[in-house]
Amino acid sequence: MKPFETTALRFDGKCLLALDQRELPGREIWIDITHPHHAITAIQSLAVRGAPLIGVAAAVCLGRYWELTLGSATAAGAPGVVERPKLANTSGSVNFESVAHEVRCARPTAVNLSWAVDLILKTYFEKGDVGLAAERILENDRMTCERIAQNGSVLISDGDSVLTHCNAGALATAGVGTAIGIILKAHTQGKKIHVYVDETRPLLQGGRLTAWELKRARVPYTVICDNMSGFLMQQKKIQVALVGADRIARNGDFANKIGTYSVAVLCQYHRVPLVVAAPFSTVDLRCGAGSEIPIELRNSDEVQPGEPCWNPAFDITPSELVSKYVLESDVYLAQEFSRYLKSRI
Amino acid sequence: MKPFETTALRFDGKCLLALDQRELPGREIWIDITHPHHAITAIQSLAVRGAPLIGVAAAVCLGRYWELTLGSATAAGAPGVVERPKLANTSGSVNFESVAHEVRCARPTAVNLSWAVDLILKTYFEKGDVGLAAERILENDRMTCERIAQNGSVLISDGDSVLTHCNAGALATAGVGTAIGIILKAHTQGKKIHVYVDETRPLLQGGRLTAWELKRARVPYTVICDNMSGFLMQQKKIQVALVGADRIARNGDFANKIGTYSVAVLCQYHRVPLVVAAPFSTVDLRCGAGSEIPIELRNSDEVQPGEPCWNPAFDITPSELVSKYVLESDVYLAQEFSRYLKSRI
Repeated sequence: MKPFETTALRFDGKCLLALDQRELPGREIWIDITHPHHAITAIQSLAVRGAPLIGVAAAVCLGRYWELTLGSATAAGAPGVVERPKLANTSGSVNFESVAHEVRCARPTAVNLSWAVDLILKTYFEKGDVGLAAERILENDRMTCERIAQNGSVLISDGDSVLTHCNAGALATAGVGTAIGIILKAHTQGKKIHVYVDETRPLLQGGRLTAWELKRARVPYTVICDNMSGFLMQQKKIQVALVGADRIARNGDFANKIGTYSVAVLCQYHRVPLVVAAPFSTVDLRCGAGSEIPIELRNSDEVQPGEPCWNPAFDITPSELVSKYVLESDVYLAQEFSRYLKSRI
Repeated sequence: MKPFETTALRFDGKCLLALDQRELPGREIWIDITHPHHAITAIQSLAVRGAPLIGVAAAVCLGRYWELTLGSATAAGAPGVVERPKLANTSGSVNFESVAHEVRCARPTAVNLSWAVDLILKTYFEKGDVGLAAERILENDRMTCERIAQNGSVLISDGDSVLTHCNAGALATAGVGTAIGIILKAHTQGKKIHVYVDETRPLLQGGRLTAWELKRARVPYTVICDNMSGFLMQQKKIQVALVGADRIARNGDFANKIGTYSVAVLCQYHRVPLVVAAPFSTVDLRCGAGSEIPIELRNSDEVQPGEPCWNPAFDITPSELVSKYVLESDVYLAQEFSRYLKSRI
């Protein structure tokens, strides 16, 4: 694989590094994920998170692992960096397929992970260049973000205040992000916008990560607790809500960070359009409806150590609460979207 | 004043102490609020919080202050504790009225504070025993809680799961609480119930205080993030939502902890009854509608230090989202309630 650098992933020709998102915004620490087992740990601990990004991270770490253990030396990188760094438990006899399956199962909800690993495995079985396949997945995500941003930016008007939940930005993708990509594009187009950022308990991906991105991009924003968005809508201070997705079912129902469903109900009650932005890789055509999407239950301690807590990482929003879906191909009204998806089967 | 002890307030005949609720559940620290200025600091810093409790705390600290500075020595307490502890800036010439007004303005939203101080001032102007008036306010709140618990318990059925937001328990009153009083009564009646506790960001009065109370009372509970209750309702896991109130307007609109309005909208969407439990002292008959209730904006750092945040401490829920109001006098349907209030003018 050629060296690359995104907001959350870096490859210098030797080491594959991921920004430890648990440490943001306080510290920018990069961790080595050259070995797939490191990637699994990083994904499960949420050092690496965001549906598109975990797919890309899985792909590039498997691509690099293939180069180091099974691929040709010339595939190992740019001139001068062809020597192989030492990896524990690696040899030509390692079972690449089994490691890939472990990566595929690191987290259950975001379908981008299995989508990316399946593409990698297909290349592997077809005896193709797995490193190249990984690079294509990365590049595809980057371009996809750009198209989503462009497509979605027409939905943001000058003067709008936008609500977003969790982080669907550059930290969650290999590009400019999905929901946040749209916001940045509208900002770049010169529209005066203000972003209300749900802090997104329990792990504060909004307050920590989205705020970090918006500050860097100089987009005006205000962090709020998740329980405040209803009061803002009551005061007509939100014109549109923009969220990402971790898995979209064939009927348009989608899984996203816990709390998205409550935002969707509040939007419906206040007639605020809810816009879902995601790459096509987030669509699971084998999944008929939201009820079939597995929801990851995480450790109770993430909510409050020492207390009995319930901690689903995601919830399901039915398509009837969605105003528009923004994909790399186009913007879809809810009623058109399911038809479009069926045409893609 | 005679010695007394509630969950959050203690008077041993000399010192008036309040449990520092900022430190719960980790530590039980009692702070001296004998001087009204200490009470103001305690109320503003949320060491002492909860609409009925801040009214009671204001009353008893003014009652004690009156005894120490203006009242007769015999009014100062039980035999053996008649000597006056040293108070800074106190003398017979102190302006009691001015200090009372300072206490009255410590926080703007909960009307119980001004209600209690006004009763104290009335007694003071009529040259009555202010200590005795304070004792009556305390005792009234205790009995009121008991009646609310009894009245409201019929709304909880065996097997119900109840959602509650913030803390409307013994820590918020001089008695068993309002919303939590109802829950405890239903539990005592042998009904098998489970309580879902909104952690209630930013200051976690649910996760810290309501959980602390329910644990002590051995009522089964689960703490959730504020953004999870919608997902629970979608799964039909909540049968009733029970909240307190900080101020109720003549038309039934009410202010309560930020996030209550979002819970109310979610209840409406999922046809879950929303029950508001409060003493009549929370009703502000001079206030026609929720829009007239002042909302306290608190420091941004309570949400996330170093970030631009919006931090309203309360929101307004319109009466059309309320299923029932439980007061010490009775249980009222939303449509009856406004008529009842008008009859009380």
